[in-house]
Amino acid sequence: MITTNARESRLYQSPLDFQDVQDIAIGCSFLGAGGGSITYVTELQLQQALEEDDSRITIVSPHDISDDALVVPCGWIGAPGVLLEKYPDGNEGIIGIKKMEALLGQKVDAVLPMEIGGQNGLSPLLISAKLNLPVLDCDGMGRAFPKGFMQVFNLLERSGTPAVLTNEHGHCVIIDDADNITLERLSRSTSVSMGGRCHKVSYPLWGSDVKEMVIPGTLTLAADIGRNLRIAGCRGQSSQEALFSALRATKDYRYAYPLFEGKIVDVSRRYQYGFSIGTVKIEGFGVNGDTSVIQFQNEFTAAWVNDELRATIPDIISIVDAETCEAIHVENLRYGQRVGVIACSTNSIFRSQKALDLLGPRQFGLQDEYRPVEALNQTTNHFGDAE
Amino acid sequence: MITTNARESRLYQSPLDFQDVQDIAIGCSFLGAGGGSITYVTELQLQQALEEDDSRITIVSPHDISDDALVVPCGWIGAPGVLLEKYPDGNEGIIGIKKMEALLGQKVDAVLPMEIGGQNGLSPLLISAKLNLPVLDCDGMGRAFPKGFMQVFNLLERSGTPAVLTNEHGHCVIIDDADNITLERLSRSTSVSMGGRCHKVSYPLWGSDVKEMVIPGTLTLAADIGRNLRIAGCRGQSSQEALFSALRATKDYRYAYPLFEGKIVDVSRRYQYGFSIGTVKIEGFGVNGDTSVIQFQNEFTAAWVNDELRATIPDIISIVDAETCEAIHVENLRYGQRVGVIACSTNSIFRSQKALDLLGPRQFGLQDEYRPVEALNQTTNHFGDAE
Repeated sequence: MITTNARESRLYQSPLDFQDVQDIAIGCSFLGAGGGSITYVTELQLQQALEEDDSRITIVSPHDISDDALVVPCGWIGAPGVLLEKYPDGNEGIIGIKKMEALLGQKVDAVLPMEIGGQNGLSPLLISAKLNLPVLDCDGMGRAFPKGFMQVFNLLERSGTPAVLTNEHGHCVIIDDADNITLERLSRSTSVSMGGRCHKVSYPLWGSDVKEMVIPGTLTLAADIGRNLRIAGCRGQSSQEALFSALRATKDYRYAYPLFEGKIVDVSRRYQYGFSIGTVKIEGFGVNGDTSVIQFQNEFTAAWVNDELRATIPDIISIVDAETCEAIHVENLRYGQRVGVIACSTNSIFRSQKALDLLGPRQFGLQDEYRPVEALNQTTNHFGDAE
Repeated sequence: MITTNARESRLYQSPLDFQDVQDIAIGCSFLGAGGGSITYVTELQLQQALEEDDSRITIVSPHDISDDALVVPCGWIGAPGVLLEKYPDGNEGIIGIKKMEALLGQKVDAVLPMEIGGQNGLSPLLISAKLNLPVLDCDGMGRAFPKGFMQVFNLLERSGTPAVLTNEHGHCVIIDDADNITLERLSRSTSVSMGGRCHKVSYPLWGSDVKEMVIPGTLTLAADIGRNLRIAGCRGQSSQEALFSALRATKDYRYAYPLFEGKIVDVSRRYQYGFSIGTVKIEGFGVNGDTSVIQFQNEFTAAWVNDELRATIPDIISIVDAETCEAIHVENLRYGQRVGVIACSTNSIFRSQKALDLLGPRQFGLQDEYRPVEALNQTTNHFGDAE
């Protein structure tokens, strides 16, 4: 059970190599639930960083950081598709960390992903490589969510400020004083003004906070997902089984369901209020007219199969390649892709009423109350066999 | 010539009383060219502040500040009409000054209006009253302009950062690093996220800068305009003559023209990109169908009479009450108002090609090259009599 005991992981044994990075990237894409942006650009930046002599990426358990350490969650805010055209230069996070140190008058001791999803699970590794800071094996969401306050730190009433927003031109905006809801609004509009996307360092924490306030073990889980899929691919084994095997080894993600398989026949997508918003429609491979519709706002927020609701946020919905089971980010969804739809459970803190009031299905325009994915799929064996 | 020699002014003799404040307010409204927001709320706040025992507002010449003094321009950014619904609490500027002091590690020695127009000419007086800081008799625009970089400080290549944005909830955003054009974009989106309007402290200056980089004497000019109109009103004299008398005593504003008189028959106004944008149409009092059309983006940007262009930004266009000659802000324009349209010249620095590329008529959608108001009105005696 990785997420109840993140004290042990092979990631802690030695600095990461590029294979580890690629494995983590594949896992982060699944956990991103469609969001968090593609990992490819950051993978290239990490490859380059690792080729430099003294760059090393070390992952440590959140339990192994001292109580008075200054620890900062990092990641990107903005519409995912913007990354396809507007590339980071790799220094955004570095400038953000330096500015946070200046603001707090203290050196940063470690970083962690604000969310494990997509590029945001990976980009703290670039900071680790460039600043020789350890990355904690944990994150603030256990997946990706559309808004900054949809974090465990906010649920546990930590202040998100000061927050430092930076871009590839070296522009820097500090949100110095704001409640966490306002922080999200101010960050979002700044991300739009910075071209649709910017890097964010916020919710500074102490080492003592980290032991209670994070979703632990998520980098290890991402690496496990990626490694399982890689090995299954090499061996010609079932990629879906490999994915589910990594998920069911955890407490949080073990209720995992293959909801649908088919071909994407429609993608409707618009950029609005700094988000990528839309729906995707999938037709089954069979002749009986089965369809699935999935709604997204940066991340997938609800999935229907033949008009029956089968999963909603905060549970993870991912659209994966039908063969490899690698997740397809919202910005890469295209007509004709042959895909599977997979849903799995999420950390119980996000299923509390307090959390659902912030990030449940009603926050995304649905009329439905949240029901756990395992309740919505009682007739499906959670490893995929109909009962 | 007030603006060539701002060493002497009766405003420097003793702390301001509320009569001075009201005079300055009336002058600021004229110089605001429709923008800068109504002064009424700030007048009330100043009245209250002056009634408190130890509050005093002192105005000093920019020549009398020491070279190493830290001096900061202050004012509001946002669509003018928002003030009608969203009231300031009077502490926004105080928080902004305190934060600027913390950022620069130095006490602020004096404030000045970032623009003399409307509320922005007045609000630094509130900071003066509350923090016992002197206000410099000068500003950054000599009028009001729609965007933050349309300032003499930007034209003379001062950096606008750090800039501190605050609102009535105590939220605080610092734009720490950005060129001046980006600073405006980031400030504008933050003002929108703060509800359409926020207070800004930016372009921190040294005392030595102030002597070369400001439009001098504009608080005194505003007071002169207000006093002239007040006295003319009491005596039943021509308010237009009283206004023009104050303007022609200056070097910058002495080319002043009454372009039109009539009744407002149409106001088209929308809020877009954080600005109040639109046009106003005025029909002459006579029977020959004369009309004037005036375009605005927070401030009036161009005025036509019978389809002939008669004035454009950066020259000042003001719509004034036909009887009192008091300026009517864009947010207060209404069908049926009996008004005069007045245009006058502006400081020559804003008529340079470098300035026109930033703030000339083409920046507001006009096809016309800038021509000075005195060139566009050669057939009109500049005190109002047709030749």
